[in-house]
Amino acid sequence: MAEINNEKLIQRLSRIEGQVGGIKRMLENDRYCVDIIHQINAAQAGLEKVKKLILDRHVRGCVTRGIQNGDNSIVEELLEVIERSFK
Amino acid sequence: MAEINNEKLIQRLSRIEGQVGGIKRMLENDRYCVDIIHQINAAQAGLEKVKKLILDRHVRGCVTRGIQNGDNSIVEELLEVIERSFK
Amino acid sequence: MAEINNEKLIQRLSRIEGQVGGIKRMLENDRYCVDIIHQINAAQAGLEKVKKLILDRHVRGCVTRGIQNGDNSIVEELLEVIERSFK
Amino acid sequence: MAEINNEKLIQRLSRIEGQVGGIKRMLENDRYCVDIIHQINAAQAGLEKVKKLILDRHVRGCVTRGIQNGDNSIVEELLEVIERSFK
Repeated sequence: MAEINNEKLIQRLSRIEGQVGGIKRMLENDRYCVDIIHQINAAQAGLEKVKKLILDRHVRGCVTRGIQNGDNSIVEELLEVIERSFK
Repeated sequence: MAEINNEKLIQRLSRIEGQVGGIKRMLENDRYCVDIIHQINAAQAGLEKVKKLILDRHVRGCVTRGIQNGDNSIVEELLEVIERSFK
Repeated sequence: MAEINNEKLIQRLSRIEGQVGGIKRMLENDRYCVDIIHQINAAQAGLEKVKKLILDRHVRGCVTRGIQNGDNSIVEELLEVIERSFK
Repeated sequence: MAEINNEKLIQRLSRIEGQVGGIKRMLENDRYCVDIIHQINAAQAGLEKVKKLILDRHVRGCVTRGIQNGDNSIVEELLEVIERSFK
């Protein structure tokens, strides 16, 4: 996975923002629950992807440099992020 | 869990929309990856909660009425929603 | 998804039991962490599948009959199971 | 989180193996679906914990040493493990 730039990430987040706005309108228009749930799934998948891309960048960048410089706290922080971010 | 009204759900979604906007600004301002990931976790937890509240309402309402009226397709649909929405 | 019988489910669980035993042997033999993690993923996917099959059977059977008989506590219980079992 | 030794991990896995065997007996004895699902949740939580402990050890050990020795493939492998192992 090639490193991703901020612009691409912000584009993805704008799309997710639009999806969340769309879900609000679906509720206002009393759309069918199941259709709303599918839209929430799509927004969640979008956020999960952005999170993985940022974690990816973090590990290749900050974590790798930190370890090379003997900074062990970056390893502790990474483990805590994984613990809190995934399931 | 008492049934939730649309207004409350829309309020929750507005908050999530704001969080996603905040994440965009964090990226624009080159904020620390780990802080951004924590904000994404918060937005994801918000969506998960809204999804569970809507599923809850769906099961108590549409699914219960459907089964009472002998509509078995609502059961198939519910199982598919659970399959696609959780893990 | 057709309803599944107990025999098939027990076969799946025997396979998972074997996988967990295999993971223990991998640890005893100091196998590479990443290979062990992949085996744990496989066992987890197996349990997830069994859980979904049992939930499926529960919804088609007990829940449907309960609702037809006007037993609303079965709906509350189902919602609690979903809440606790997924994510 | 202090590094965990193999013995402790194997003990945890033996307990999970026992839980999976117990789930098989619950099915054989036609126990209530919801009770079986709760037992599956317990076994899954056990595996998730073991996985996180092994990942923890891997990151503190192999990954840290690999990066210090300029081995970038260990970073790629870690990112792939996270991608496949969580959600």
